[in-house]
Amino acid sequence: MIDKLEYTNKHELIFIDQTLLPLKEKYIKTKNYKDVAEAITKLRIRGAPLIGIAAAYGIVLGVHHYRTENIKNFEIHFYKVSETLRSTRPTARNLFYAIDRMTKTFEENSEKPLSEIEDLLLREADAIFDEDAEMCNRIGVNGADLIGDKMTVLTHCNAGELATGGIGTALGIIYTAKKQGKEVFVYVDETRPLLQGARLTTFELDKNEIDNELIIDTMAANLMREEQIDCVIIGADRIASNGDVINKVGSYSLAVNCAFHKVPFYVAAPGSTIDFEIQSGDKVEIEERDPGEIKEINGEKITGNGVSVMNPAFDLVPAELVTAIITEYKVHYPPYNFAGLKHMFSSYVQSIRAGIEEKS
Amino acid sequence: MIDKLEYTNKHELIFIDQTLLPLKEKYIKTKNYKDVAEAITKLRIRGAPLIGIAAAYGIVLGVHHYRTENIKNFEIHFYKVSETLRSTRPTARNLFYAIDRMTKTFEENSEKPLSEIEDLLLREADAIFDEDAEMCNRIGVNGADLIGDKMTVLTHCNAGELATGGIGTALGIIYTAKKQGKEVFVYVDETRPLLQGARLTTFELDKNEIDNELIIDTMAANLMREEQIDCVIIGADRIASNGDVINKVGSYSLAVNCAFHKVPFYVAAPGSTIDFEIQSGDKVEIEERDPGEIKEINGEKITGNGVSVMNPAFDLVPAELVTAIITEYKVHYPPYNFAGLKHMFSSYVQSIRAGIEEKS
Repeated sequence: MIDKLEYTNKHELIFIDQTLLPLKEKYIKTKNYKDVAEAITKLRIRGAPLIGIAAAYGIVLGVHHYRTENIKNFEIHFYKVSETLRSTRPTARNLFYAIDRMTKTFEENSEKPLSEIEDLLLREADAIFDEDAEMCNRIGVNGADLIGDKMTVLTHCNAGELATGGIGTALGIIYTAKKQGKEVFVYVDETRPLLQGARLTTFELDKNEIDNELIIDTMAANLMREEQIDCVIIGADRIASNGDVINKVGSYSLAVNCAFHKVPFYVAAPGSTIDFEIQSGDKVEIEERDPGEIKEINGEKITGNGVSVMNPAFDLVPAELVTAIITEYKVHYPPYNFAGLKHMFSSYVQSIRAGIEEKS
Repeated sequence: MIDKLEYTNKHELIFIDQTLLPLKEKYIKTKNYKDVAEAITKLRIRGAPLIGIAAAYGIVLGVHHYRTENIKNFEIHFYKVSETLRSTRPTARNLFYAIDRMTKTFEENSEKPLSEIEDLLLREADAIFDEDAEMCNRIGVNGADLIGDKMTVLTHCNAGELATGGIGTALGIIYTAKKQGKEVFVYVDETRPLLQGARLTTFELDKNEIDNELIIDTMAANLMREEQIDCVIIGADRIASNGDVINKVGSYSLAVNCAFHKVPFYVAAPGSTIDFEIQSGDKVEIEERDPGEIKEINGEKITGNGVSVMNPAFDLVPAELVTAIITEYKVHYPPYNFAGLKHMFSSYVQSIRAGIEEKS
């Protein structure tokens, strides 16, 4: 497993800078929650589940390294820290899920001594991390049922170890299938503009000894036409109650190509990605990022200065183009209605948590 | 008009190095046909029609700067030069069209004095250039009928001034529509891996004062879903008799998205792009280029060294996904049968040629 993120007993967060991968494996160590917020904004830490985990530890750092005996000041500081982390990126559901849990832990225990609150917040962050790892394992097992021996899978962006607290969502399924003795070949699309496929997924698959080949994003269509792809599996940044999926820009084009070529299009994500409150994906704010991400690569200019650019980080895959959604709970088929499953997911998380506590 | 290529009266070829655009406008001047061959291979000169024109002048350079009085040696040298230029790139039809015309001129006049043969070859290269410019004008007029006022067009790669002897094919239609007083907005997809859209098409549209916005390739699907695109127009590197189109990789994915979203998909190309001899596109050799084009950008590494990469330069759009093909002759609708039009195209070229000769 790649060492991607760790909260140490010296109350530091250590994480790998994903913007420098695969050429440099550089770790950043910090005691400052603002560094965590910056790391999320600048994609040093990315992947919806991992963002949530990092934000939870960011809150722990923020409260631990704040010195006061005054509960009122402590409370003000808690909300300042959590709002800073909450406003780093607007789209991924898991970020808000994690911060909401940390806030709930704080509010339910605000009468207790400060050192105890700090301890409870650290335990909650650890729980979010551990649960996410366990959700990945269960998604892996549920999804691996869909993968036959010698299948060829195409994936987009990076929904693997580097994006989660565990083995990954989309890639976790592939790792699990391999563990079950199945041979899987993976086409990795480069994922413009930030090339998470080219940079992170090829790196991660090579470390996990999964045969893979890199393609430009539009080549997916040609491979499907030649019947070289058995299925597509991607992760998700947010899933609406109706099954609409928000994921890395380029996902919709892939889904259209799957529909056209009759290739199954699977989405793998933990329950923490589901936004039970929204009916459909068009209600989700899509982050618009810096045009420089398209106009430059590795700091090298490609276009002239005056060029006008559109750079949304995500796009929407309507539920009708999604063959199945794989969560830690099961494989869900259309018609999707996650709103009705909200209670089930939260009680399921309780059971995962109980299992983790029993083991430790 | 951008000064892209010129054969001077000092018997030099001057051309702009398209690999350095838009950041540097550097011209290369040469008397050596091998430099022309290298420029085509390395994409300093690119665009199917412009490759043909450059190869024709390459032959002129090759014979002019060869000193002999022996017709046998001259003949051997001619074939050596033309084969060098012919083997630069395998896919674009116009390259072979131009070299075949030059060869025919040589063979029909091989009894004449060497200086006269040289002169006839230069006149043939000039004719190929001038005819291509005139074909662009006619494609522009024919295609502009399909463009209404305030339409939004998406284009892929660069099929403009920089790709042809004149105003371009796909972009020539847009320039002509603008001249007719129509307002046209263009979405330019960046065109991975070599970013001809981001580098060349935005540069060219800005010079021609056409409003445009750059997007990553996969964003086309989202814009179509939001009904922001009225039609797609691309060029072609080769067209089979049945209307199958070979063009820059990424064209097929665009065509699938057009079919899915019911957006017209137009291809604009001169008759010199049509391969009357082949029945369908799957007979065409698709050039596989250096993996470094994907693994590096501007010489900067993106991926690790060991990463396996697929890098075809072109892909095939089956005729059934092509709404219309716009040539200098007319707008062709399916079912396409260019084999039956071969004679018509060559007599049409004669009439274009006669028109040019009359003017000059």
